[in-house]
Amino acid sequence: MMAAMQPADGSPDITSTANPRVKAVAGLRDRRDRDRTGRTIVDGAREVRRAIEAGAGIDEAFVCVPLLQGADARAAFDRLTDAGVPISTTSPKVFEKLAFGERAEGIVAVVRVPSLSLDEMHMPADPLVVVLEGVEKPGNLGAVLRSADGAGAHALIVADPRTDPFNPNVIRASAGTVFGMPLAVAPADAVIAWLRERGIRIVATRVGAAAAYTDADLRGPLAIALGSETEGLSEQWTGAGIEPVSLPMLGIADSLNVSVTAAVLLYEARRQRGLPVGV
Amino acid sequence: MMAAMQPADGSPDITSTANPRVKAVAGLRDRRDRDRTGRTIVDGAREVRRAIEAGAGIDEAFVCVPLLQGADARAAFDRLTDAGVPISTTSPKVFEKLAFGERAEGIVAVVRVPSLSLDEMHMPADPLVVVLEGVEKPGNLGAVLRSADGAGAHALIVADPRTDPFNPNVIRASAGTVFGMPLAVAPADAVIAWLRERGIRIVATRVGAAAAYTDADLRGPLAIALGSETEGLSEQWTGAGIEPVSLPMLGIADSLNVSVTAAVLLYEARRQRGLPVGV
Repeated sequence: MMAAMQPADGSPDITSTANPRVKAVAGLRDRRDRDRTGRTIVDGAREVRRAIEAGAGIDEAFVCVPLLQGADARAAFDRLTDAGVPISTTSPKVFEKLAFGERAEGIVAVVRVPSLSLDEMHMPADPLVVVLEGVEKPGNLGAVLRSADGAGAHALIVADPRTDPFNPNVIRASAGTVFGMPLAVAPADAVIAWLRERGIRIVATRVGAAAAYTDADLRGPLAIALGSETEGLSEQWTGAGIEPVSLPMLGIADSLNVSVTAAVLLYEARRQRGLPVGV
Repeated sequence: MMAAMQPADGSPDITSTANPRVKAVAGLRDRRDRDRTGRTIVDGAREVRRAIEAGAGIDEAFVCVPLLQGADARAAFDRLTDAGVPISTTSPKVFEKLAFGERAEGIVAVVRVPSLSLDEMHMPADPLVVVLEGVEKPGNLGAVLRSADGAGAHALIVADPRTDPFNPNVIRASAGTVFGMPLAVAPADAVIAWLRERGIRIVATRVGAAAAYTDADLRGPLAIALGSETEGLSEQWTGAGIEPVSLPMLGIADSLNVSVTAAVLLYEARRQRGLPVGV
């Protein structure tokens, strides 16, 4: 199987770190290059596989054959091949320049960033939406995406973020689920207006809110809004149609990681709506 | 206020990285030194504050005055002083050797590791216990501790771990909640026997189990058992009195972070038991 991944003479296609394509792809670690080109970089076999399966637009991929190990890596490679994605083999040194740390498992892909426009986002009936405001750490945004995916949320809207959702570290922390989740970025006031126009109720998660999340009706068209870990939700998330709820903290700490809070509220919403049986 | 933290002449107590006490404390980053001395190191203002508040045995603390900033750091310093803990001031260079990365906020403490014996663990009526088997990453163990603390679990039992619960990175990832949680370490068979002897039912979280966690009765004396992310629970977690349940995965991924799974199940158990009102 590995034979198919190598040119006839066994040497990699790219062996120089000065290769202009390598430089261009490595540059996608910087937000400016991502914004300018509309592309990002995906590290890791599982993440690449999920990007393909979710129908992400993949421009090209780079593999380092000696590092390509495990079922996930082989599956990712096979799917890239089946999809006709151009694949270049690289030397370990070139791959080190392309990949993040030791976790890329011999495969990275270059993916086109989809539209993040709120106006282009379409919702099913009774949508269950997550809104995350002011998030700063890519790891937190990625972890919230993973929670939202697990609980079957229909979309994630990022309000006033301080990181871009297709930062490679978001992709990695999301375990690739970012590619399966309708996603939009907008200012908080535009998000609130958008939700209100569509009759989507808003539950605002706040430390110390009198109502516990279990007391709220989480059925029907609903957005669950969460703030950043350091600052919580801004004052904009108050007023008509916005219901504050808290997640009771029963130990010595005063907050949970935002991805944990998101999961607890989302799965409670799912429970109230009737969890699918036998999943 | 800062004046009280400095000797009269303003120079730190310790300015040499070769100081034998500094070397001994920095050595606590290694498990062998922790096991040999029964001590560990706590980085960060919030973590140190929670250790004190939870009644942990604190041997000594080191502060770097120029780095000591923020309300948490001042609160931690004041509590250490009130508790009569010996505090040494250090130069920035010495502090860099003692502390982990940039996140210690000018304060580290040396804490005595409490007993981790199952036999010394006492349970209230109707305990809600978390069992985590085979955990490898300190960050995951710490995050599960934080979830267990938030949901008011009564204890966490670590079965066959591949990391020690007082690894400084566990302490940090737990946000200091490790000090507020009764904790034991034992082989899985001993944990199962201990739970059975006490009439504590076991719910075993398994990917693909036919019963969803919401279908299980999570009231009464209960242990929620979770496996490592890569391998899941071992085969030991089957048989009489052990009920397999799954957390339905409704997106494209096949699992959640173990700390997220723990929180969803624990908060569902709390909901079934009746959440305290107005927390």
